[in-house]
This record gives sequence, C-alpha cells and structure tokens, in this order.
Amino acid sequence: VTAPVTSPALAAIPTPFLLVDVAALRRNVARAVALADGVSLRPHFKAHKCTRVLAEQVAGGGCRGVTCATAAEARVLAEAGFGTILVANEVVHPAALALLAAAARRVEVTACADAPVHVERLGAVAAEHGVELGVLLDVDVGQHRCGLPPGSPELIPLAARIARTPGLRLEGLMGYDGHAQHRPTPSDRAAAAQDTAAILAAERDRLAGAGYPSPVVSGGGTGTLQGSVAAGVLTEVQAGSYALMDVEYGAVAAPFERAVSCVATVISRHGGRAVADAGLKALSCEHGLPVAEDAGVQVVGMADEHATLAVSGAGGPAVGDAIALVPHHLDPTVNLHAALHARHPDGSIERWDVDGG
Amino acid sequence: VTAPVTSPALAAIPTPFLLVDVAALRRNVARAVALADGVSLRPHFKAHKCTRVLAEQVAGGGCRGVTCATAAEARVLAEAGFGTILVANEVVHPAALALLAAAARRVEVTACADAPVHVERLGAVAAEHGVELGVLLDVDVGQHRCGLPPGSPELIPLAARIARTPGLRLEGLMGYDGHAQHRPTPSDRAAAAQDTAAILAAERDRLAGAGYPSPVVSGGGTGTLQGSVAAGVLTEVQAGSYALMDVEYGAVAAPFERAVSCVATVISRHGGRAVADAGLKALSCEHGLPVAEDAGVQVVGMADEHATLAVSGAGGPAVGDAIALVPHHLDPTVNLHAALHARHPDGSIERWDVDGG
Repeated sequence: VTAPVTSPALAAIPTPFLLVDVAALRRNVARAVALADGVSLRPHFKAHKCTRVLAEQVAGGGCRGVTCATAAEARVLAEAGFGTILVANEVVHPAALALLAAAARRVEVTACADAPVHVERLGAVAAEHGVELGVLLDVDVGQHRCGLPPGSPELIPLAARIARTPGLRLEGLMGYDGHAQHRPTPSDRAAAAQDTAAILAAERDRLAGAGYPSPVVSGGGTGTLQGSVAAGVLTEVQAGSYALMDVEYGAVAAPFERAVSCVATVISRHGGRAVADAGLKALSCEHGLPVAEDAGVQVVGMADEHATLAVSGAGGPAVGDAIALVPHHLDPTVNLHAALHARHPDGSIERWDVDGG
Repeated sequence: VTAPVTSPALAAIPTPFLLVDVAALRRNVARAVALADGVSLRPHFKAHKCTRVLAEQVAGGGCRGVTCATAAEARVLAEAGFGTILVANEVVHPAALALLAAAARRVEVTACADAPVHVERLGAVAAEHGVELGVLLDVDVGQHRCGLPPGSPELIPLAARIARTPGLRLEGLMGYDGHAQHRPTPSDRAAAAQDTAAILAAERDRLAGAGYPSPVVSGGGTGTLQGSVAAGVLTEVQAGSYALMDVEYGAVAAPFERAVSCVATVISRHGGRAVADAGLKALSCEHGLPVAEDAGVQVVGMADEHATLAVSGAGGPAVGDAIALVPHHLDPTVNLHAALHARHPDGSIERWDVDGG
C-alpha cells in the first residue's frame, strides 16, 4: 500500500477510512491457493466481514465453501449467494439458531458441536424449520476454548447422537489451532500444525473405528496454512486474514503482504509530535499499536479518537496531510468500519461495504 | 446491573448486546449535577454516541450545551435538536469541515484551534457556508496530544487571528487533562486538576491582558470532575463516561456506579472453563479485560468472537445461560454496537440506537 496522498478521489473520502490495495489482495489470494497445494481453502469471513473480499478469495480458486463465525454472518453469506457455509462455532442462542435455519433454507450450512446440548438445539431448529444442518465435532487442539479435549470418552457418543438425530448430517470434525497462529517463526507454526494434525488424525481414526467416517477435517488459519498442508490431515483450511493481512501476521513472517491500511488526517502538529484523526474507534489495539507506513513516523499512543505520532527528523506530515496506518489486528479493525475503499490497479476507487452484519 | 437471565424480553434479544440500567444511569446523572456544584456540565457524546443517553444527561439539568469529538457527531446532534455544541477537537478534513458548517446552520457550534491552519480552514468554511463558528484555543495541559504548550508565544497571535477572521467567534480556551482521568485515587486526580486549572488560569489571564476575554474555559472529565470543580477555573466540565461507567473508571473509584453491561450467551462449557459469545467485536479490550458480574466467573481471555471464562467452584453457567460482562473501556465498546437496550425501572426494555454515526 503506497502513500495515498496524491489522489483527489482518495482525498475526498472522510477520514479515517480503510484503503484496500486490490492488486496486493489478489496476489495474496493467488499465493494462498498455491500454498494450499490441493488442500481446500474455506476462507473465513470473520476476518473482514466483506462479501466483496470473500468473492475475491473464492474467485481465486481452490475453495470448498466458506467459513464464518456467527449465524448472522451465515445468513448474510447465504443471501449473497455463497454456498457450503461452515459456521466454525457453537450456535446456541434461539435467535442465532433461527438465522442458521434461514441460511440453511438456501444453501448447505454446517455448525459445530462439543456437547449434547448443541446437538439437541441444532436438531430442534432443523426440525422446526424443515431444514438439514451439517455438524462438525469440535475438538480442542490446544487453544483451550471450545471443543472436546483430545481422547474424550464423549466423542463417540456425541457422534452417535448427531448421526441418529433427524435433520442433522455428521460431516466430520474440526479443531482450530488459534493458539499457534502467531507463533514467531514458520517452523514454530509448522510444529504446532503437526501437533494439531496428530490430534485430529487420532480423533478421525477413533470415529472411523466406531463407524463414523469424517469426510471433513477442518482447521488451520493464516499462520498455520503451510504447516497444515504439510501435515496432511486437514481436508480444508479456514484461513481468512491472508487476504488483507495486518501488523500481527506481518511480524511473524506469514507469507502474505499487507493489503490494507487506515488513512487518517493529521489534525495537529507541534515539533516532533503529530496527531491524526484515527483512534480506537478506527483501529483495534488490544494486541498492540498500528504501524505508520511512513518510516519517519511512529504511532506512540492511541485514544478514542486520536493517534499520537512521533515524527523523526525535519519535515514529516503537516496539518491536513493524509497518513496511512497499518492495523495491528485485522478482524476487529474492519469490524469498526462500514466500508472498505478498494483501490483497483487502474487507480479507481470502489466502495466495498462491510456487509457481514 | 443485576443478572439478566430472568426476563423473557431480554432472553429474546440476540447476544451479545449492551444492557443499560436506566435507574442507575439517572442516579449517575443526578450525582454529576450535584458534584458539579454550579459549574456547568457539557456532557461528552463520544462516550456513548447515543442521543437518548445524552438526552438523559441534559434532562438532569446543570448543563450548558454538549460536547462531541467529531464534526459528524456535531451534525447528528444538531439534527437531533441539541444546541450549543462543542467539538472538542481540531477539525481539518474538508468533509469534516462541511459537516461542521451543516451543524452550524442549525445551532451554535464551536471547534478548537491550536495553529493558524485551523483558523484558516474554519474561517474559509464559515465564509463558504455563510455560518458563524465559535473557536476555543486548545492548550496542552499535560496530555501531550493536541494543543499549544503552556506559555506558548503563539497563543496571543492565534487569538488575534481568530478575532479578526470574519465568521469566527473567539469564545475562550480549553485544555483536556486526559492523562489524569484514570489516576488511581481521587486525591491524585484532584492534584492533577489543580495543575490543569493553574495552566488554564495563566493562559486565560494572558489572553485577558491582551484584550481577549475567555467566557468559556472548558476541560475535565469523569475522573477529574470533582477536582476541576474544586479548583475553580473551568466554567464547564466535558465529562461523559459518568452516565454509564466502565471497569476502568470503577477501578479508580470515580464516584459513579456501573450502568451498562454486555449480555452474552454461554456457548461451551467443559469443567472449569466456559466460553461466551462476546469477543473483541462486542467489548473493546485495549486497556484490559471485561469483568463478569457473577463473582464466580472470571474473564481470562478475549478473542474476536469469544470470551473465555474461568468458573470457580461447582455449578456456574451452563451452555445457553446468559452472562453479564462489564466493559473495560466504555467509549470504544459502545462504538461496537448499533444499539443499547435500556431497562427501565418498571422492567420494560427499550431500544436506544447508537445513532452518533
């Protein structure tokens, strides 16, 4: 993403706003397909909540369906024409279950279960709405969030319960290694992906031994994409952030390039200190600060509405100048914006709504 | 805010959502008026971006106008019928300046300046749109963000420039002591407020000596409200968070009660670990984690879509139960939601849009 100050079309957009470099996005999509090396991608919508970005990911090829985090997102995706939707999450609230059923009336939809209550609720809503729902058994591969622990005696009974519930379709298992996505080196992440694959292979084999085959073994992310492919157990990788990237993934040498930045206006400048109009309502900072694209500018503080910048050397941005800040953490940052502004290779700017609800 | 699990009306609202205790909000508003002790309140809209909450603050009395952070907010407020609007910020981008002028066509609007470029741009947009704009000179009272440093030789020339610019009305000065709002004890904050008051009194007196009186001396916040009143220089306090509060202000014994929580659904439970469906897209965590209202439950991790909870002892929330989490930082948390759900003293629930743009 190059400095955006030269384009009158960009200068007219109220700051702060997110700017997407479409050429870089497309290079990232092509690179993910190459790295997946025949394993399916199931791009994760939660990273950007923008159907236009997801369409770029799907258009790049190599995908089997799409992934999302919530039933509300599933409905948006189904209405936008995406199919074979995985909600990589447990769906529990009655309103969420109704949205899941609404999506399943249009396309194939799958959700996750790690306890009998999930199977009960999914079965009840499938019956109530006359739809079929796919189910993946969720396994805790080390993130210690949702999922059955590896080797749990509950796994086979849960599979049996899904298999005998009318309206549910047991598709296999998933285990998301979120704890490994930002490990510092590619080889750290490859080792973690091997561990994940070993756990999921053992669970897959236990299920097969009990008569429950797993056509789907889903997991992985942008950080573990290569390691997951090398480990050879996953049938699909749920990566999403690779499309646009962020500081966090850049810092651990994920093999993709930054395709998004937040354009802000400098509103105050006194000596080596400048202030821009992009704060915590434009850039999510729970894991760290954004990084300025200009090498002479450093973000030193973020408040609700302001980024405070240290400017080194003479010159640097004046009041009224645009400045580009790379988000530290993509997913909750895009969630702060109603739209992305996509810059095409020909220089034209297109508004892409963040329409994921 | 008591546990919300018993109300069918609440149970029907898709989680995660923000729940406001209207009785607690009104007690906070009354307490702020009492503490202000005759100094004007100018409640800050940026804390909640909800005109319905701002209306409660104004209805409590003791206010002279309202404060906001952006020109877009100013236009929303002007259209919603609020008057005497202070944008406590420098307004620089052409689109923002146009919104400021749109607001100023309806009601009295004031913005800030810390450099000639601000005066130029405010004067130009006032002339272009045929409106008058108030201007406060912005002084850096120790936060080291926007504002002229104390004693700056630029202060008087800047005042003169405002005074001679057609369409601009020099109203006085402001200095926001954001660095002091969360100091650990009330006496720490009172001392900081005294320092702020001393700086602003000196600048006010310099301006008066040069022939520029300051009918407005604006500053302060929820943390320094009492200290600012005691120091006796501010004519108005720009506090906002006192209406709803958060973990951060609660931790430093600000004299108000929590009136908001985020209601989430437990979606997974294995032993002492539970997971709820409120993550970084529902609760802003740059300064720390939310706090569960249930004493037996501790938030131990936040991801994009999940809160991971440690449950102590036997029992605790099961899958499907509602759980209430108090936001750590109010302003960027409310910004994540399209609406607040206000629970009135009679138990009825009303949707209050977060309509601040």
